Amino acid sequence: QYSEKVMDHFMNPRNVGTIENPDGYGKVGSPSCGDVMEIFLKIENDIITDVKFRTFGCASAIATSSISTEMILNKNVSEALQLTNKAVAEALDGLPPAKMHCSVLAEEGIKAAIEDYMGKK
Amino acid sequence: QYSEKVMDHFMNPRNVGTIENPDGYGKVGSPSCGDVMEIFLKIENDIITDVKFRTFGCASAIATSSISTEMILNKNVSEALQLTNKAVAEALDGLPPAKMHCSVLAEEGIKAAIEDYMGKK
Ligand code: FES
Repeated sequence: QYSEKVMDHFMNPRNVGTIENPDGYGKVGSPSCGDVMEIFLKIENDIITDVKFRTFGCASAIATSSISTEMILNKNVSEALQLTNKAVAEALDGLPPAKMHCSVLAEEGIKAAIEDYMGKK
Repeated sequence: QYSEKVMDHFMNPRNVGTIENPDGYGKVGSPSCGDVMEIFLKIENDIITDVKFRTFGCASAIATSSISTEMILNKNVSEALQLTNKAVAEALDGLPPAKMHCSVLAEEGIKAAIEDYMGKK
C-alpha cells in the first residue's frame, strides 16, 4: 500500500537528529494520533542551511518529514513556508488516505520552526 | 514522556517478522491513525509456540506489540485471548494517554489471529 519512495524514506530517513542552538525550533503534535514531531533549523541570511528532525511517529510521519527536510534545504524561509503537506505527499508518489494526517506534522513542524526563527529576529 | 520499557521495546522490538503458513493470522487497522498491524501465530495443541508481528505503526504500536508477543508466547490460546491493552500498557510502565489507541492494535491483532486459528480447527 506504500509507494517505493515512502518505503525508501521510512527505511533510510534523511536528516534525522537534532541541532544544538538551532536558529529555529518547532515541536508539534497530531490531534488524531498523539504523535510528536520536532524540527531544528540552522538559518543564515534567511536561507535554511541545515535541518534535522526527530519523531516517534509512524512510517508515514517519518517518510514525510524525511522528504520535507530535503525539500526545504538550501531554500529561502519564505519558500519553505509555502511547502504544503499535499506537495510532500505528491513528492512521495502518494500516501494512503488514512495517513494524510501524518504528513501534516512535517508541514506544521517546519512552519513552527520558521515562526520561532522570525520571532527571534 | 516514554518509559524506559517503551523505549527498550521500540528500539529493540522482539519477534518482528512473519511466519510461513501460520496457524493463526490477524490483520487489523486503527480507525484513529490508519496504522495496520499483522500478527502471525504458530500453535500446537492450543499452545502458542511462536509469534511474529509486522507493522508500520508508531513507536507505541511497536512497543506494545513487542511486549504482547512476549506475554502470549508459550501460553494457551484462551489465556492469550484474555490479554487486554490495559495490561500491556501496565507491563510497559504506562503509555501517554494520547497513545493508548496504539496499544489496541496489538490486542485486536492477537484476538483476530486466534479467531482465525479457531475458525480453521
Ligand atoms: S499512531 Fe498509529 S499506531 Fe500509534
